[in-house]
Amino acid sequence: MRFAALLAASILATPALAADPVAVATMLRDRALTGSPAYAVVESLTTEVGQRLAGTPAEARARDWGVARMKAMGFQNVHVQTYDVPRWERGVETAEVVGTSAQRLVLTALGYSGATPAAGITAQVVRFADVDALSAAPAGSLKGKIVFIDHAMQRAQDGSSYGAFGGIRRAGPAIAAQKGAAAFLLRSLGTGTARVSHTGTTTWGDVTPIAAAALTVPDAQQLARLLDRGPVTLHLTLTPRLTGTGKSGNVIGEITGATAPREVIVVGGHLDSWDLGTGAIDDAAGIAITTGAAKLIIDAIKSGEIPRPRRTIRVVMFGDEESQGPLSGQQYLKGHPGDTAILTAESDFGADRVWQLRSNVAAGAKPLMASLAKVLAPLGIAPSSAAAHGGTDIEAIIESGAGVIDLAQDGTRYFDIHHTADDTLDKIDRVQMDQNVAGWVSMLWLTASSDVPMAHPAIAPLP
Amino acid sequence: MRFAALLAASILATPALAADPVAVATMLRDRALTGSPAYAVVESLTTEVGQRLAGTPAEARARDWGVARMKAMGFQNVHVQTYDVPRWERGVETAEVVGTSAQRLVLTALGYSGATPAAGITAQVVRFADVDALSAAPAGSLKGKIVFIDHAMQRAQDGSSYGAFGGIRRAGPAIAAQKGAAAFLLRSLGTGTARVSHTGTTTWGDVTPIAAAALTVPDAQQLARLLDRGPVTLHLTLTPRLTGTGKSGNVIGEITGATAPREVIVVGGHLDSWDLGTGAIDDAAGIAITTGAAKLIIDAIKSGEIPRPRRTIRVVMFGDEESQGPLSGQQYLKGHPGDTAILTAESDFGADRVWQLRSNVAAGAKPLMASLAKVLAPLGIAPSSAAAHGGTDIEAIIESGAGVIDLAQDGTRYFDIHHTADDTLDKIDRVQMDQNVAGWVSMLWLTASSDVPMAHPAIAPLP
Repeated sequence: MRFAALLAASILATPALAADPVAVATMLRDRALTGSPAYAVVESLTTEVGQRLAGTPAEARARDWGVARMKAMGFQNVHVQTYDVPRWERGVETAEVVGTSAQRLVLTALGYSGATPAAGITAQVVRFADVDALSAAPAGSLKGKIVFIDHAMQRAQDGSSYGAFGGIRRAGPAIAAQKGAAAFLLRSLGTGTARVSHTGTTTWGDVTPIAAAALTVPDAQQLARLLDRGPVTLHLTLTPRLTGTGKSGNVIGEITGATAPREVIVVGGHLDSWDLGTGAIDDAAGIAITTGAAKLIIDAIKSGEIPRPRRTIRVVMFGDEESQGPLSGQQYLKGHPGDTAILTAESDFGADRVWQLRSNVAAGAKPLMASLAKVLAPLGIAPSSAAAHGGTDIEAIIESGAGVIDLAQDGTRYFDIHHTADDTLDKIDRVQMDQNVAGWVSMLWLTASSDVPMAHPAIAPLP
Repeated sequence: MRFAALLAASILATPALAADPVAVATMLRDRALTGSPAYAVVESLTTEVGQRLAGTPAEARARDWGVARMKAMGFQNVHVQTYDVPRWERGVETAEVVGTSAQRLVLTALGYSGATPAAGITAQVVRFADVDALSAAPAGSLKGKIVFIDHAMQRAQDGSSYGAFGGIRRAGPAIAAQKGAAAFLLRSLGTGTARVSHTGTTTWGDVTPIAAAALTVPDAQQLARLLDRGPVTLHLTLTPRLTGTGKSGNVIGEITGATAPREVIVVGGHLDSWDLGTGAIDDAAGIAITTGAAKLIIDAIKSGEIPRPRRTIRVVMFGDEESQGPLSGQQYLKGHPGDTAILTAESDFGADRVWQLRSNVAAGAKPLMASLAKVLAPLGIAPSSAAAHGGTDIEAIIESGAGVIDLAQDGTRYFDIHHTADDTLDKIDRVQMDQNVAGWVSMLWLTASSDVPMAHPAIAPLP
């Protein structure tokens, strides 16, 4: 009897709450702050699966984990899309200074780095101030040399210093190779002082890859000091290799919309990680924040507190973000032809607090964004006039016409950890992660319960 | 003519200053704070030599560096004492979880660890709460198992948490071996979250060594989480080995005393380091602080500002502290039979600021300690009633009857870095290091210019 009475009470409560999306969003927001489901998700993925380099058996185990987890969390229509990606494996990676200051330097190969011979190479280091200086070196002038580029990356809340210096990693190796260099080294694109290297992809185009690696920040500083004293010769051994094709894939679940199920809010993070850490901040955190936010809605629907939202909320654990990037979003679109992704957002910048709301939506959705900003304000999140840009996995979805929202995270310490062996569970701050979930659940509810068009008019839907 | 006049002025100034040791100490103290010679020393040793594991060619290069540096700094009577130490070499060190949570764990062998077969071992992990619990395990009950001990080491200004948990590393492996264990793992004796392992010696007595290694803090936490879920099997490969005997040695220089040259203040740090980092905080810093402080006195003598002190100030770059410990001090004593070490002190706890003055000296020297405390007070250094205990290298010198002073450093972040690959130059804070030099030069001047007996009466000089 008591249970029947409670049930009746919650059913009675529903229409009033549902009629006020801001009240529901506020309730869900505050519930997230009391301890969200997100930490258990990130703990489980990083502990039970660990690293999950794309295309490997570890990423396949992560997909199995994702399916089981989404079903256990109550997601509907849980399914997997797989697709082929090249497989790359890290090998030996050592470097020693030759001569009177003989000493080991710590480095790690960049993703898709070429290799030295198994016995390594011994060559002189040539330092360049930046990519422009390297580009200006005469053709052939670097024959047999090891190129080294240092930089001055700094902490920034928005991570903009990564943008400023990222070209060293992405473009530098191919330029060095074209000029005959035997290998390429950079100071890790990192802001910390731990002696761990930051990997990440580099792109070769039609250039034959050479060995390319990132020194830890302390080791790059050491090499710079040695170069200040005179010529430096290194013995360098890097033996990564491509090992054919493997499967990557998206794991997808949803809260099916009540009245407009084909209007879909597509959100998520990426399931793959680099091989060095356990991919906690990059990007088990994004998986945890987005599934955790959805779980709060699922639970509130199940308990009868709120109705099913009008639109579908679809959470995607995207496949290989780290090297094949936009492919995951393209695969998503290919697999869901009958749906319209009306809005998309990605959580892929760690687990520290959200500080800024950015959007790029239809003009008619501006009042909804203003409502959202009001719900987010008590979380310390301020709206920005800068346009949202999303993340790599949702590039294709944005291009398909979806509106986009950024719940921009504080990246001040992100690049201490990003793409290193240090990307482990202990780097996650539960309180900040729950603040993320509070922001996400507010955004998901307000947009999924709305009937306002979201897609930005400047982006025409694909024909 | 101008130079002669300046020289005359400085000669005239000398007697007044010399008559007031506190005034000289204060002047030297304040000079240190404006930028001491210490940073250049630590920069040079860590860059040009790098790691310098005892008994290796790298330690020999460090001795050559030390002789050249001391001569260049103006030390008198620069000489080297060498002695034999066992040589130990790090080999392969890998660990992988076997089974559905297959993943690599990061660890490093403890100094003097035994080895697994080259192909490694595959064995189940047995966790113990502490050394007492391990000791209570029945004989033979651990046959073929991998023992793991976790702990709760915390930051402490005086480093006391290292004392509380250090027995896990020093005694744990031999106890596990006696009970038939195949290998021993501990959570690194560290307080940081960087994914670097903390090495350090373990002692075997007459027990046959087994493989013994320290997991990084994040990896130990990961293993603990996996053990919480069920049995864990590891594939472990550790191949360190003893490679015979090598030379370690002390590099020694001095400011010879003017009127009591055989009364010697013996101070220093240690020149050797573990092989993983470049030994910046452990203990190039101690070398830099003590030689840097002496250099300020040397320069002031040379410029005629102050006279040569009454007693000899002898700075020792001690040999193998990390594994053979007290041997370096014993060798020092053996090589200087005509001298009396009336006071000794060691800098071997990093480069962060000195916060406490402790002493253990003759009762008649208490007023001198009170004067020293007054000079140190503006540096934020407070006297303590706790007895000074010195460091490993000066154990034998203390036992020979010398008084001892501790300029105790803030160890709050010391065990983030200690014995890891992270022990690199960037961890040195120049401002804090100069505060150390300011304290040391004050102490050196006051004690070397005094004629008060320093040796603690409770410690009888050796016969």
